[in-house]
Amino acid sequence: MLRLYDYLPSGNGYKVRLLLTQLGLPFQLIELDIMRGETRTPAYLCKNPNGRVPLLELEDGTLLPESNAILYYLARDTPYFPLSRLAQAQVLQWMCFEQYSHEPNIATARHWIQHVGVTPEREAALAEKQRLGRAALAVMEGHLRGHTYFVGEAYSIADIALYAYTHVAHEGGFDLAPFGAIAAWLARVRAQPRHLAITARPG
Amino acid sequence: MLRLYDYLPSGNGYKVRLLLTQLGLPFQLIELDIMRGETRTPAYLCKNPNGRVPLLELEDGTLLPESNAILYYLARDTPYFPLSRLAQAQVLQWMCFEQYSHEPNIATARHWIQHVGVTPEREAALAEKQRLGRAALAVMEGHLRGHTYFVGEAYSIADIALYAYTHVAHEGGFDLAPFGAIAAWLARVRAQPRHLAITARPG
Repeated sequence: MLRLYDYLPSGNGYKVRLLLTQLGLPFQLIELDIMRGETRTPAYLCKNPNGRVPLLELEDGTLLPESNAILYYLARDTPYFPLSRLAQAQVLQWMCFEQYSHEPNIATARHWIQHVGVTPEREAALAEKQRLGRAALAVMEGHLRGHTYFVGEAYSIADIALYAYTHVAHEGGFDLAPFGAIAAWLARVRAQPRHLAITARPG
Repeated sequence: MLRLYDYLPSGNGYKVRLLLTQLGLPFQLIELDIMRGETRTPAYLCKNPNGRVPLLELEDGTLLPESNAILYYLARDTPYFPLSRLAQAQVLQWMCFEQYSHEPNIATARHWIQHVGVTPEREAALAEKQRLGRAALAVMEGHLRGHTYFVGEAYSIADIALYAYTHVAHEGGFDLAPFGAIAAWLARVRAQPRHLAITARPG
């Protein structure tokens, strides 16, 4: 059986839990508490030298880190990943955008506010992350004004990757009220068959 | 003909220039000076709402941003991208690592030191980026001690993506001397047929 090393509040882990659930693939969830350093132990660093979750362990023991690479591995040759070379590249385009322009701002703001606290030294950095996070949301809003989903008018792993931290952006101090197209898209994603909530324990 | 919107010192742009050159694909280079705001003009934001280079324009006018998505588009079905699902996911794994754990630290440190200057407000942030950048280099070093290239013992777009900013990491204040396996890998990448230097004008 597949094993997923994960932390339930993690949006990056949630992407994988959601796709596994929608694909109907059973998996064993191994929970690690990142707040207690459980992803930085010598034993875990042997599994993932970069010390992060999620980490997927295949049935033969192969270890695959990086949420968006795991999504690709699971979704290829399924309806969650398109067939044409251009559409595939566009899915990866939005997943790269998510990891570079969206997650480091929106997820980090949420993590600071919800989990580690906004110390005085973090205040200026938080304001900058909120500015850049709003800019990323504006890019999504502009695209979704003309599209139902991110690529090819079909729900794909690009939507899963971007849904993960967008639907909890308010926990990072982001006001989604100005982003009507994003709100409508969030509802479409939530209405997909076998949807799973972020902290719902799968299975 | 393919058109590449790019800025010659950009490592992200360099990835695409290097692969296009190694594939023998002719392209028109359209240079934009990011230091003069040329990627933030209304005309350019119509092409890429995220306001970044590189941006690939296909022959039919389709616009594809995000360096690693462009690499995928160009490399799929060529020797620069493997065939098996797992090896493909591992290539994407290292490209996700590059965009999340490597580039924001190593490329940004280089950009500050070489182009925009290290203001007093940036000093603490620079030290943190150099700490995280060294951690990313240590992850690469650990992998390369047991491997010739990042995936499947063959040169792929994972190597191109990681070479781009690693080989100029000294410009960001990183000392590569402790990383002997990285140095040997950099030399192997440089020895690939049709290699191109970062600021060499292609063609």
